[in-house]
Amino acid sequence: MQRYFAKEKINDEFILQDDDLYHIKTVMRMKNGGQVEVVYENNVYLCNLNIDSSIHIIVDSILEKRENNEPEVILVLPFLKEQKIDLILQKGTELGINKFIFIETERTIVKVDEKKEQSKLDRWSRICKEASEQSMRTDIPTVEILRDKEALGQMDGLKLLCSTKERDKTIKNFLKNNTKCDKIILMIGPEGGLSSKEEMYFENKGFAKITLGTQIMRVETVPIFLASIIRYEYME
Amino acid sequence: MQRYFAKEKINDEFILQDDDLYHIKTVMRMKNGGQVEVVYENNVYLCNLNIDSSIHIIVDSILEKRENNEPEVILVLPFLKEQKIDLILQKGTELGINKFIFIETERTIVKVDEKKEQSKLDRWSRICKEASEQSMRTDIPTVEILRDKEALGQMDGLKLLCSTKERDKTIKNFLKNNTKCDKIILMIGPEGGLSSKEEMYFENKGFAKITLGTQIMRVETVPIFLASIIRYEYME
Repeated sequence: MQRYFAKEKINDEFILQDDDLYHIKTVMRMKNGGQVEVVYENNVYLCNLNIDSSIHIIVDSILEKRENNEPEVILVLPFLKEQKIDLILQKGTELGINKFIFIETERTIVKVDEKKEQSKLDRWSRICKEASEQSMRTDIPTVEILRDKEALGQMDGLKLLCSTKERDKTIKNFLKNNTKCDKIILMIGPEGGLSSKEEMYFENKGFAKITLGTQIMRVETVPIFLASIIRYEYME
Repeated sequence: MQRYFAKEKINDEFILQDDDLYHIKTVMRMKNGGQVEVVYENNVYLCNLNIDSSIHIIVDSILEKRENNEPEVILVLPFLKEQKIDLILQKGTELGINKFIFIETERTIVKVDEKKEQSKLDRWSRICKEASEQSMRTDIPTVEILRDKEALGQMDGLKLLCSTKERDKTIKNFLKNNTKCDKIILMIGPEGGLSSKEEMYFENKGFAKITLGTQIMRVETVPIFLASIIRYEYME
């Protein structure tokens, strides 16, 4: 069944976003009484459609309440080419990442003008929302741009940095020794990796350097790999 | 350093493929004496270029000999839309898959005409070759189309089938209990999954049904997830 995220709940009715209303009416061609799933504040509701001039959705029954034992996963990543970012956001959402934080790094080639930040964030959030609906998630990952990297020092949780220099400490090591953690913050570098100076800076902010093994992956493959193995490691 | 797969070795010279020669000459603009890595029969050679009218590559020294403790990973998958197949081949190669076997399934929407098989295989093999070079693999995954599914019964190894019906037996279970296996054969279904009849057919051919958990992934994400967790599980 099709799933949509509501933007508001008024009494027993959900208010959906305009593009979702368009999807229901014009793409799905649904009629009064048709059923959809609506997600609101992490709960999933089975709903009957009540389509008037505007669309209201009447709650029918609560279908599911979210239970989540996986840790919160935050990905810190540099700006990359749009196509790579799109893939990371889509696949990362499917695989359970909860938050994407974009930063500028020394070897970042792609720059995001501060004036264009909001339109980028809107676009990226839309990709996450669509991927969340498709993969039946009950939450939508958030996306932000962080200009002041100092803030990463104040975050708590298991903080790991994918290093191109580290040879011995594998990600497996860290995950095996932290099977009860409730927040993981993963940092990846751009093509060419983080500089030694940057790695040192982030180490001082509490990040542990790790290696993903000897094989080389494209930059956009790394977060997909990371999200996969975290989901696997915390699978029942 | 740029890496190429040789098609032949004659005494101390390697013969490369025409498109690689084009890449060296025209894209990389390399000159006599320039160095590249050449992979031949799973060995990596550091080589000096000797560019004449045609290009010969003279062996300089053996740089690396492949050591591999990971199991051989074979992915059996349905025909899908080109874009999805391209992503699976590229990411699957980066993440260590050794062979891709395409089959037709009941719910396969995309058909591959037998007359067009060879041109498809050529294209797919080229994607694997490029991804192997980029990710510094010392082998290139093979790609085949299997019309007679009976043959899957004769293959040995740990045979797993991603089922949409199985609820309890997770992939984690199977990998944890088979930490010393040297061949894993993974079968995935198309959008909508394999039919019950197909699942039963493959169970009779020795495949065990598994679930990847309750979350839903797009069909092209499944093999990337699988290749990631196998790489992780067999990581030192």
